[in-house]
Amino acid sequence: MADVPPNRRSPPHPRTRRGKDTRAGLLRAAEAVIGEIGYAASSIADITRKAGIAQGTFYIYFQSKDEVFRELVVEMGRLTRGFLTEAVADAPDRLTAERRGLRAFLAFVAERPTLYNIVTEARFVAPDAYRDYYTVFARGYAQNLSAAAKEGEIRSGSAEVRAWALMGMAITLGERFAIWETGIDLDMVVDEVFDMLERGLRP
Amino acid sequence: MADVPPNRRSPPHPRTRRGKDTRAGLLRAAEAVIGEIGYAASSIADITRKAGIAQGTFYIYFQSKDEVFRELVVEMGRLTRGFLTEAVADAPDRLTAERRGLRAFLAFVAERPTLYNIVTEARFVAPDAYRDYYTVFARGYAQNLSAAAKEGEIRSGSAEVRAWALMGMAITLGERFAIWETGIDLDMVVDEVFDMLERGLRP
Repeated sequence: MADVPPNRRSPPHPRTRRGKDTRAGLLRAAEAVIGEIGYAASSIADITRKAGIAQGTFYIYFQSKDEVFRELVVEMGRLTRGFLTEAVADAPDRLTAERRGLRAFLAFVAERPTLYNIVTEARFVAPDAYRDYYTVFARGYAQNLSAAAKEGEIRSGSAEVRAWALMGMAITLGERFAIWETGIDLDMVVDEVFDMLERGLRP
Repeated sequence: MADVPPNRRSPPHPRTRRGKDTRAGLLRAAEAVIGEIGYAASSIADITRKAGIAQGTFYIYFQSKDEVFRELVVEMGRLTRGFLTEAVADAPDRLTAERRGLRAFLAFVAERPTLYNIVTEARFVAPDAYRDYYTVFARGYAQNLSAAAKEGEIRSGSAEVRAWALMGMAITLGERFAIWETGIDLDMVVDEVFDMLERGLRP
């Protein structure tokens, strides 16, 4: 069965409670299915079966597998950013926020290891969605670093370069210490990284 | 045509100059083809055509597309590590080596943007090769950091956590500043990152 019915535009977002719930359920099902077996192997039938709805109902909410995947990448970004924003909301200064943010990110990844499968697969399946995912992240991150430097909470420097460097660090630490191996003392990992970030490597 | 002829073992490495050259040519062709169009879309015929040899000759050197891909991932790791080792060979201390290593890595990536396509695709196509790629890297990196801490060239701390953090930083900086956008002043990027790494973010 072709994934894209001809002459269809992207369906509008649902306005009823029930419609919103069904759409959210489809996104969670897409996350579970695509995160587990990958984009190419996943079918719309797999996703609707997982969501417990009729296959035809899918098209009330999404035009195609490609569309639900792109929406999933955008939504994973929103979820992650929301989680991190909440985790650092009460931090008294930027360095504390950095530490709490990394700790929260590692916890998030440990709970949701399929996040990496989805975002990394987007690099190949939906490159623009992949770039947007990190670019939106980096933009917010750089704004926070820039504001903190102005307030004197961190030394001044390129907020953009720092944002990408810190993001990269978190991504790889998450893969290594929260996905590949479980049961690692994540507080120890965060302590070690933060010692380096706060005080530097210079003896 | 099936990729794996039945009842074949992995062919032995060639011993003649000509055999070694043909094998190396196949790896370069695999790098170009798979790096450009991806593993699934690439055929052995594409690779032999690119290498300028008869398709049947492929099986003198590799058993399957899977085998040439895995060997390519291993070889990309060797190439990258060799390039970096040479770039930092004359560095008088670890911090200088870190700086030169990052600069060299960004230059390497800018010259060879398909590196990321191949290694990242290995995450899905050959997960053990993908893990090995980074694990071998991290092991060597951690040994260097550990030795430098013993010599008092850097502050002491977990060499393993630092190695993964620094690798992650380099990977993402390479993707952002050497692949997505070209013509970026990579010296500026390295200066900014090293300011943070040497002296830390604390004001």
